Amino acid sequence: MQLDGLPTPSALIDLDRFERNATRMADHTHHLGVRLRPHSKTHKCVEAARIQTRGHFGGITVSTLAEARGFAAAGFRDITYAVPIAPQKLTAALEIGARIDRLAVLVDHMETITAIEEISRAHTAVFPVWLKIDCGLHRAGVDPESELAIALATRLQNSPRIDFRGVLTHAGQSYDATNRAEALATSQDECAISRAFVTRLAKTKIHVPEVSIGSTPTISAARNLDGISEVRPGNYAFFDIFQSAIGSCSLDDIAFSVLATVVSVHPEEQRAVIDAGALALSKDPGPTHIDPDCGFGRIVAVEDQHPLPGLRLTSVSQEHGEIAGPGAAALRPGTHLRILPNHSCLAAACFESYNVVRGTEIVDQWRPFRGW
Amino acid sequence: MQLDGLPTPSALIDLDRFERNATRMADHTHHLGVRLRPHSKTHKCVEAARIQTRGHFGGITVSTLAEARGFAAAGFRDITYAVPIAPQKLTAALEIGARIDRLAVLVDHMETITAIEEISRAHTAVFPVWLKIDCGLHRAGVDPESELAIALATRLQNSPRIDFRGVLTHAGQSYDATNRAEALATSQDECAISRAFVTRLAKTKIHVPEVSIGSTPTISAARNLDGISEVRPGNYAFFDIFQSAIGSCSLDDIAFSVLATVVSVHPEEQRAVIDAGALALSKDPGPTHIDPDCGFGRIVAVEDQHPLPGLRLTSVSQEHGEIAGPGAAALRPGTHLRILPNHSCLAAACFESYNVVRGTEIVDQWRPFRGW
Repeated sequence: MQLDGLPTPSALIDLDRFERNATRMADHTHHLGVRLRPHSKTHKCVEAARIQTRGHFGGITVSTLAEARGFAAAGFRDITYAVPIAPQKLTAALEIGARIDRLAVLVDHMETITAIEEISRAHTAVFPVWLKIDCGLHRAGVDPESELAIALATRLQNSPRIDFRGVLTHAGQSYDATNRAEALATSQDECAISRAFVTRLAKTKIHVPEVSIGSTPTISAARNLDGISEVRPGNYAFFDIFQSAIGSCSLDDIAFSVLATVVSVHPEEQRAVIDAGALALSKDPGPTHIDPDCGFGRIVAVEDQHPLPGLRLTSVSQEHGEIAGPGAAALRPGTHLRILPNHSCLAAACFESYNVVRGTEIVDQWRPFRGW
Repeated sequence: MQLDGLPTPSALIDLDRFERNATRMADHTHHLGVRLRPHSKTHKCVEAARIQTRGHFGGITVSTLAEARGFAAAGFRDITYAVPIAPQKLTAALEIGARIDRLAVLVDHMETITAIEEISRAHTAVFPVWLKIDCGLHRAGVDPESELAIALATRLQNSPRIDFRGVLTHAGQSYDATNRAEALATSQDECAISRAFVTRLAKTKIHVPEVSIGSTPTISAARNLDGISEVRPGNYAFFDIFQSAIGSCSLDDIAFSVLATVVSVHPEEQRAVIDAGALALSKDPGPTHIDPDCGFGRIVAVEDQHPLPGLRLTSVSQEHGEIAGPGAAALRPGTHLRILPNHSCLAAACFESYNVVRGTEIVDQWRPFRGW
């Protein structure tokens, strides 16, 4: 079946580009001497994670327990749930982990460790746990220069109910970069802060088994990861307009897009409307720090994703995408367009299945794990 | 079961508030002498639409053919698909319409009418069609002062394959209002432009059977709808932070919320993280034209939705919601919070089911129609 036969909006994965992105990151991380634990939150599907883990140890990262459950059932045996875990979710995590080699969680708070110990004791289990540190994003994670960080690591190392996996961080501030050089600088910070913390812990006789870092911008830009055990980029599977703006990839690397249909045209006003809105693309504002006029995605040709510069996606409401530009006058109701989203993780999460294409031919359909 | 037993994030519908909102709009529109055709895109579920249509004629509005299909199967017999229809979707629309009294579509382009006539002829059917006019939003709809508008209406009236339903518009620019008085002014425009177009058509011997208008801000504010047949507000079912900011409702009317759990706390920095992010709340920026610091939703108490002013939801990423404010220091991992979203239609669409609550007791579970 060809692209043109799909209902719209539909999610498309360009398999050639996806495989190229996966191979490039697998090779890059081999070259850097680190293990690749791809973050599956970008696609949430088994087929994609299998391709991403080829040639590496097979571990993955997830953002929900629904993903953990699904990937565990599909045969993935080493999973890290990379959002600090709510105490209420510990029993479910322990149950999933019991079916595979390891479902590791991460913590940045003493009370969560207490909850983990209680549950592990009740189940006569040993819980794999990472200590999450903050390397500058200021979202989750303990300040690695604080006394609390030492206290947390000490407790994790000494607890008989905890398998202390090591130190984990995520330099999400790399999304503030405006180019690859800035992302590289953030990558160097991410490593340096992690290494310094390991050194600090060593002075207090705490051994850190592994160090896990990463985001797509920092790992794409990284040239040296000495002292790092594994990396967890995710978005690189698909890339998107944001990643191309900050220099993680080129437009030609973007492997996820949304097929849409023109439903309204106003040629004299150089405006049109497509049937892909906020529920197909998300309302992610995109790289406005680099291009304030980026709109809600890039409009490209259906057959080969070449950019159509005369068309801009200026606005999205629930089921409408508004297009403006001189190219709009040539559109007609029924014209198909393809949209490269600002943020592929959020756009992909809008869909119950992805159409996997080679060129314009649909070769497979993949279904993501949804919900929590 | 009580709220506290739910996994998080979970979608909550406060049934008392929802029923009050539904009754108030039903009464208001009766008083105004118009039929209520609620837009079901806000909730996409049968139980909610049944409550909303009580005491009215039973017609509803939908934003996708998936909704049309689902509501038709559930017994709704008069449905309007209120996005200009792509020619490729006409056959599916005709098939759904054949099972009920009427699935009406809307058009604003001559080529779409041609496509409708071809398909109707092939199926020996008569297609119910509204003419969509633009009353100032400049999204879809023909300019009612243009010659094209007359030409489209003439063709719709004269086509033996089309059941011309009338003129339909949506004053979505009412979302730019900063208070109820401004929304009222937009409501008056919405009516006046529609009525003027009907008068203009009458001069060319075109009879307009019905006039359909509406958005939650304009209909909530409306005091006189002479000349209007029906209205299509949708968001009023749930309301949200945006609607409360522009004066369509009070905070106490908001019937949709998301239950979340605190997963990370940094008391010294007055920061915390919850497990509801962009995939549970959407990235809708909210009423920034009124409150640039509105954040990504309002944090309220779990038990009774009273506002917690010491907490602000400053940022959302895929599965993280970042909280700041003096109240953050009192949070602990595992604390439940409830979030009133900026835009309830987009937040509700994140969930596969809604927990319907009276007070803190879960009394039902409703499932929305998803996808397209």
